[in-house]
Amino acid sequence: MALIVQKFGGTSVAGVERIRNVARRAVETRKRGNDVVVVVSAMAGVTDQLVAFANEMSPAPDPREYDMLVSTGEQQTIALTAMAIQGLGVPARSFTSAQVKVQTDNDHARARILRIECTRIREELARGGIPVLPGFQGVTDEGEITTLGRGASDTTAVALAAALKADVCEIFTDVTGVFTSDPRIVPNARKLARVSYDEILEMASLGAKVLAVRSAKIGMKYRVPIHVRSTFSDEEGTWVVPESEVIERLVVSSVTYNRNEAKVTIFGVPDVPGIAAKIFGPLSEAGVVVDMIVQNVSTQGHTDMTFTVARGDVKRALTLVEGIAQKLNAAGVTSDAGISKVSVVGLGMKDHAGGAGKMFQVLSEHGVNIQMISTSEIKISVVIDEKYTELACRALHDAFELGGSAPEPEVG
Amino acid sequence: MALIVQKFGGTSVAGVERIRNVARRAVETRKRGNDVVVVVSAMAGVTDQLVAFANEMSPAPDPREYDMLVSTGEQQTIALTAMAIQGLGVPARSFTSAQVKVQTDNDHARARILRIECTRIREELARGGIPVLPGFQGVTDEGEITTLGRGASDTTAVALAAALKADVCEIFTDVTGVFTSDPRIVPNARKLARVSYDEILEMASLGAKVLAVRSAKIGMKYRVPIHVRSTFSDEEGTWVVPESEVIERLVVSSVTYNRNEAKVTIFGVPDVPGIAAKIFGPLSEAGVVVDMIVQNVSTQGHTDMTFTVARGDVKRALTLVEGIAQKLNAAGVTSDAGISKVSVVGLGMKDHAGGAGKMFQVLSEHGVNIQMISTSEIKISVVIDEKYTELACRALHDAFELGGSAPEPEVG
Repeated sequence: MALIVQKFGGTSVAGVERIRNVARRAVETRKRGNDVVVVVSAMAGVTDQLVAFANEMSPAPDPREYDMLVSTGEQQTIALTAMAIQGLGVPARSFTSAQVKVQTDNDHARARILRIECTRIREELARGGIPVLPGFQGVTDEGEITTLGRGASDTTAVALAAALKADVCEIFTDVTGVFTSDPRIVPNARKLARVSYDEILEMASLGAKVLAVRSAKIGMKYRVPIHVRSTFSDEEGTWVVPESEVIERLVVSSVTYNRNEAKVTIFGVPDVPGIAAKIFGPLSEAGVVVDMIVQNVSTQGHTDMTFTVARGDVKRALTLVEGIAQKLNAAGVTSDAGISKVSVVGLGMKDHAGGAGKMFQVLSEHGVNIQMISTSEIKISVVIDEKYTELACRALHDAFELGGSAPEPEVG
Repeated sequence: MALIVQKFGGTSVAGVERIRNVARRAVETRKRGNDVVVVVSAMAGVTDQLVAFANEMSPAPDPREYDMLVSTGEQQTIALTAMAIQGLGVPARSFTSAQVKVQTDNDHARARILRIECTRIREELARGGIPVLPGFQGVTDEGEITTLGRGASDTTAVALAAALKADVCEIFTDVTGVFTSDPRIVPNARKLARVSYDEILEMASLGAKVLAVRSAKIGMKYRVPIHVRSTFSDEEGTWVVPESEVIERLVVSSVTYNRNEAKVTIFGVPDVPGIAAKIFGPLSEAGVVVDMIVQNVSTQGHTDMTFTVARGDVKRALTLVEGIAQKLNAAGVTSDAGISKVSVVGLGMKDHAGGAGKMFQVLSEHGVNIQMISTSEIKISVVIDEKYTELACRALHDAFELGGSAPEPEVG
């Protein structure tokens, strides 16, 4: 008898029929003798609609009221899911984050979970029922409703699995697992049986939509076994596990891409100590997240700085940077949204040199110019012209032999 | 400086623009130097949609989960309304019923308010803000979310006004006040300046949609001055006040109708003591609300019983009554949904005999047959063939001289 946390995302609960399917999966797992805790997102589209309302109402909606508003999507789904489970003859009860309580800090719209009180969940399990909880929402110590930021239902689920010391956190989604690349652009991408927390974390950070970054971090910290699988099939998915449990230690396990960035360059900045702080301090204060930064070799006491930000932040970043450039007597500022970040990720890069060399060579052979480079222990990212995205992914996927013909070990 | 509770119904908050209008009204009232507390319903259509979801999910949705689901509509509106008020430069904060707390019993989907804690509301007023509260929802002592039944936002508003000892509870709606009859079928119906709690209570019970029955009862009990007025105009509405403050003491102040009833008759019931209990006991247990009951004069130890129920309950009532009729060896059961209940209401009937006589005579002159009669101290209701509804209302409205030409006293 295991304790299993099952999380279902927005497409999995989009409408009454799909919620019935979610209930069936939870009940089947329950009937196999397991304790089951269900975490659900808002129905697909509902949160978007609520966010649109907020933005229509105010150019900068009050974060407290924003959370009051958007947290209702999950509350609807937990109630409907509990009804659906009850309809299958199994007791169930939904709880808001305030009822449970999923305590967060008071940083509205992007709150962090501080503590999860498990009493009511355990009581519901003890009476043979399935507790149904909302992802995404929390409550402060003062009883204020918070939300954790978009896509944070995974975070709730993994944090809950950690708090409950669950045997597994099943992340149900609309794909069958974690793939070596996006099957929509790399047709022979194959599903990975196991990946490490480090790898999934890099993939998530790089824009792969398999598992939210924060949930991967929590999973890693508390060593929660995570099983990413499909809501719509019984097929075994991908297990996210500690590095020691990854059997197939590939040099590169995944090729990812992210078109959602834009590049900003400041030319002719005086190359003196503290210059980076002068540029990136104000951006950080304004909440603009900077991803990659490259500084050119200095010529005649001046240098160029290039960095990337999320495409949605580029206008804000430009306004800020133009002001800074003027103060610094820089030569000018440009931006380019027509870029794409392509990355290769793999545990094996820790021990194998040559991953980077191979990547650069493959891109060069296909005539793809590299604009920026960033590396970590287990990944290499390059910024390229957006139009080469698919070509680069396919070429790298082939070069690192990730295609579907490779043997995939069985996992129990 | 007065303390004013303003309640806005579903059509008044249907969409961002209308919520902005609600915010403007609240802010204007605030800027005139008053303390303002706003109570809002869910946006028109939202609760219906949620109820439809619940019914699609389950033929008999768990009441606790039903409340968890349908209470989200109001939560959305309070957040958007608070944002809109803030957008006009006035501080505002929304509170769920759990946060405030609006404590109810645990009779889910039709809970009753037991107590309203005013601390957070008064704190918000003290800092110069406008607290925005949801109608319709409550919370039990154990923190379970409840709802008060459809249309109960009025109840919340009046109960809140009572708890806060507010100077007035303004009920904003899509009509400009309480009319002598429905202007859609009686074109010369006119707005009443004042009506008594007793009258509004009768009108509400009789199906006039001006103010929910429970809110009128609470208003009467705590003597809350209620001002029913239009969201979309500044026109003075109708004041609901104690009987002693009604200036224009009309014999009949209003002609109302209700097409939403159906008639059930059991023929040839043995006329013995306890027979009514045998028939109406099971109906009451099944939650079928019986309105009028008429028992015929007994012939040869047998009688006929006729009663009315809400049209939506007629199938359930028939099934129950057919079973009972068999047990009692009754001659048979029939039902008729083609009826309408027309009523005249007026404080003056307390002192003036002749209201009933006049009503019956007018109907007779117009060839309208009366099927059932029911009276109270200040109202007379008759059940007639549905097709005569408009005719009967117009004829009675004229006969009791309620038309627009009558003088209407000024109210300060």
